[in-house]
Amino acid sequence: MSTDALDLTNLPLFDHHCHGVLTNDVDRAEFEGLISESSRPATDGTTRFDSQVGFQVRAHCAPILGLEPFAAPDDYLARRRELGADEVNRRLLRAANIAVYGIETGHDAGRINGPADMAELGDASHCEIVRLERLAEQVAERVRDAPGASAAQLVDEIERTLDARLEHAVGVKTIAAYRIGFDFDDARPGRSAVESSAARLLETEGPLRLDDPTLIRHLIWLAIDRACVIQVHVGYGDDDVDLHRCNPLLLTRLLRASVDSGARFTLLHCYPFHREAGYLADVFPHVYFDIGLAINYTGSRSEAVIAESLELAPFGKILFSSDAFGAAELYYLGTLLFRRGLTAALARFAELDGWPLAEQQRVARMIGYENAARVYGFDPLAQNGAA
Amino acid sequence: MSTDALDLTNLPLFDHHCHGVLTNDVDRAEFEGLISESSRPATDGTTRFDSQVGFQVRAHCAPILGLEPFAAPDDYLARRRELGADEVNRRLLRAANIAVYGIETGHDAGRINGPADMAELGDASHCEIVRLERLAEQVAERVRDAPGASAAQLVDEIERTLDARLEHAVGVKTIAAYRIGFDFDDARPGRSAVESSAARLLETEGPLRLDDPTLIRHLIWLAIDRACVIQVHVGYGDDDVDLHRCNPLLLTRLLRASVDSGARFTLLHCYPFHREAGYLADVFPHVYFDIGLAINYTGSRSEAVIAESLELAPFGKILFSSDAFGAAELYYLGTLLFRRGLTAALARFAELDGWPLAEQQRVARMIGYENAARVYGFDPLAQNGAA
Amino acid sequence: MSTDALDLTNLPLFDHHCHGVLTNDVDRAEFEGLISESSRPATDGTTRFDSQVGFQVRAHCAPILGLEPFAAPDDYLARRRELGADEVNRRLLRAANIAVYGIETGHDAGRINGPADMAELGDASHCEIVRLERLAEQVAERVRDAPGASAAQLVDEIERTLDARLEHAVGVKTIAAYRIGFDFDDARPGRSAVESSAARLLETEGPLRLDDPTLIRHLIWLAIDRACVIQVHVGYGDDDVDLHRCNPLLLTRLLRASVDSGARFTLLHCYPFHREAGYLADVFPHVYFDIGLAINYTGSRSEAVIAESLELAPFGKILFSSDAFGAAELYYLGTLLFRRGLTAALARFAELDGWPLAEQQRVARMIGYENAARVYGFDPLAQNGAA
Repeated sequence: MSTDALDLTNLPLFDHHCHGVLTNDVDRAEFEGLISESSRPATDGTTRFDSQVGFQVRAHCAPILGLEPFAAPDDYLARRRELGADEVNRRLLRAANIAVYGIETGHDAGRINGPADMAELGDASHCEIVRLERLAEQVAERVRDAPGASAAQLVDEIERTLDARLEHAVGVKTIAAYRIGFDFDDARPGRSAVESSAARLLETEGPLRLDDPTLIRHLIWLAIDRACVIQVHVGYGDDDVDLHRCNPLLLTRLLRASVDSGARFTLLHCYPFHREAGYLADVFPHVYFDIGLAINYTGSRSEAVIAESLELAPFGKILFSSDAFGAAELYYLGTLLFRRGLTAALARFAELDGWPLAEQQRVARMIGYENAARVYGFDPLAQNGAA
Repeated sequence: MSTDALDLTNLPLFDHHCHGVLTNDVDRAEFEGLISESSRPATDGTTRFDSQVGFQVRAHCAPILGLEPFAAPDDYLARRRELGADEVNRRLLRAANIAVYGIETGHDAGRINGPADMAELGDASHCEIVRLERLAEQVAERVRDAPGASAAQLVDEIERTLDARLEHAVGVKTIAAYRIGFDFDDARPGRSAVESSAARLLETEGPLRLDDPTLIRHLIWLAIDRACVIQVHVGYGDDDVDLHRCNPLLLTRLLRASVDSGARFTLLHCYPFHREAGYLADVFPHVYFDIGLAINYTGSRSEAVIAESLELAPFGKILFSSDAFGAAELYYLGTLLFRRGLTAALARFAELDGWPLAEQQRVARMIGYENAARVYGFDPLAQNGAA
Repeated sequence: MSTDALDLTNLPLFDHHCHGVLTNDVDRAEFEGLISESSRPATDGTTRFDSQVGFQVRAHCAPILGLEPFAAPDDYLARRRELGADEVNRRLLRAANIAVYGIETGHDAGRINGPADMAELGDASHCEIVRLERLAEQVAERVRDAPGASAAQLVDEIERTLDARLEHAVGVKTIAAYRIGFDFDDARPGRSAVESSAARLLETEGPLRLDDPTLIRHLIWLAIDRACVIQVHVGYGDDDVDLHRCNPLLLTRLLRASVDSGARFTLLHCYPFHREAGYLADVFPHVYFDIGLAINYTGSRSEAVIAESLELAPFGKILFSSDAFGAAELYYLGTLLFRRGLTAALARFAELDGWPLAEQQRVARMIGYENAARVYGFDPLAQNGAA
């Protein structure tokens, strides 16, 4: 800390929202699917490698795998298979240098590894976040198969299961954005309405996909009543989302209604509504946000998006996440681009307004690690005496 | 004007929308409240000083009070009390170097000083803007207490009082954004609907808070009919606002309906909808805008926001305001950051496109002073032979 | 390609959406009208020259006409008349150095020249895009005048005429943004509803202005069924548009419904929703976008807007257009600013992430020319053996 230039290479990072990685080798089509939010293959005549994130993979991950920067996509995939998924994952996750993985376990869990395996691969601590909608779907599938199951039982069992999961998990997540949008009634639904919706769910055949507004609102209010940290998918995602209905400002009334509950909301990704998220984090004491997967997917432009996230929100309300899923490249790039973009932004503030180096470092530690440790009440670095 | 580098240190500024300052000393909690738009204290574990505006106070106001830059918050507050509110106000307002204060007198007037006192403290000229909703509330409280008061009397008295105030005031302001949002019917309400709303208002007990859409629309149309300059709070504000209902584009039909009325609309703040405001200022001849309080609250990032405000809108349609309230720091920082950000933007345009220095200066004078002087019909510098 | 600095001066450009130029001389008021999207003259006390695009004309077009940069507006207009419209058009269009004009012929065609004349003036190839609403209006005006015309005949005749036009045109355009906004029902309307709307259209007297949602949706679905390239006006335009109803995200359901149709959507302009457009181009394989007229009208700031357009969207989904109409200055400035802004953005990416020069050039060619050539199936440079 005696030099003048800010260096965040070893800034401790609490990746408060990410998923596991694939442990099997992938072919080019699968890999292109992993580096895109679209549920569809690239348009004829194009490749997913010709994108900001694709160029980042070639620029920065290729050397980690022992290739020259900007290796051709096919060469990159060949090298990936040559090393094998385990070695690739290990190299990229170690390079990511993440202190804590906050693993959200509700998305496509069958394809990827679990929290403990992630932590081992990445030589890191971990904690778990429970996806509310997946929990309800799993409980409903179980209850449905029991003889004489009632809606009341389902409602009770969801609550019991949530309580059990919260004995270990540090928070919950909702994907209301994908399922119902944010233009929902903010009031806590009554028991009878919840049971009616639960009854309909039990009558559904086949794999369940929860998209009932009453039940989703009920899940959110269960979490509010438990003073949980509630991760909310906001903004940018795949083509399943109606993005205009996922503007975080549509949550304003729910946030107002829950401001004194003890619950805290961590708004994820938020692009292209990250300025709106910064406003909410400013005016509501229980709102936090990150720009999550937007960092990876804007690539060389992420420095601008990161800078835009540092406007209205107090520095104690901004978090870091990679939102990485499946490909170990996304953890590495998420941290690389975050460290770089935050460094550039803080250096610019120092240049303009003389921010002392110690203050730059303090703000970086808050955003990179300490805010999440405080919000989630999980601070392994402090427990290790290292923070 | 013989050097090549643009210097806006002494650019005359017409701060067309601001308020008074507190004349008493404040403790840390009060001061933190003044440097935030939130109605709530900072979250546990955080302070309002750890924000863009907090860092600006420490960076630039501390030296004005005789401290080192980035003095600790408690030292800053101690020094503030040591000097006393009057000296602090005088130093910071003189440093702000504002030529004209356009004081909006309808917000929390009991806590702050009045226009004439502000002008004396800042060694500046001043003019007044009347807040429509406050005027109506004050009239209604008075009429309500008179024996046999009728709704018709209230409607008439609002109009008479407005006319009386407009003999001195240069414009009006509406906070429809806070009270009803912008998704209201743009048509002029009829007399009977207005009287029905007025009757309901008279039946209300206790302090009045006008949030009746008919009456608020009526007030706006009274101002349109009088060809007033109408300041409109737009976008970012405190947690009382539903920000998604304050997008200025929602005013499009009202603007279209009033385009030939002689009234002019000055859209205030507008963040994060400042590009949308720039569009409206481009296509509607009677629309102007500023980025007001967004400059202070984005701090080191204000240069980016200022640059974004210089896109679609013709240079004759952009205004300056600090929207400062209560803390003299906000006037000083508002002018410092505006001068700096405008200088940087114009210098970049010169670098890219060869804008001559005289043209840079001319555009700066328009935005800083001349546009407001023309729109409000108030030009004390010209009257003094100094502009 | 042996130097290190990217040079896009001679990058081939496919201007996939533009119009013709005026062939007569214009006075100052007319010229000010051409360099603004507003339907109204500049506000008293201001001029359209005091704007980003006005400064661009003085900075870069004045020298093409043999004047010093930043010539006074009146001197510029005088010189323009002295040279004559034909010489001015020829100089500016040659300087624009456009390879292909994609001319949309449905806007104010009586005032401007046609595609073949444009191509001759600009020494370029050309192709045509048909405006759906104008086509329907023209057919309806013709059918209406025929004795015993029926709604069914009108519906059939629109379809026949569209098919005939598509024998030559490379795509269609819709101005649903202006006429009905994007918050329309995405379903294909039934024949009887279409005929009812057609009947109402036939009963209208005087010049027709199609603003019937059913008919406009019908036109769009006709184009989807024909697997057309469909240009969609999105975002920023004149004061006739309700901009908040032209957010491209409002098209999400229509895009979802048409994803496997073979049709492709090219979203035009998109400002200030260009990030939203980039998201759609990322997740939907049949969506493309440009930032069109926003480049000209943000002038010195266009480099920022261009950079923002290079975030989420794969590089194979971004297009170039000038959206120039009437004034030859707008073609020249559109290409100048696009080449410059793209160069700056790619150079920055190279600086940050080591993009090789060949990759910068490849991405530039895709965006400037090749994406449009592939999407529209029109590639005269390849046919000439020059691409």
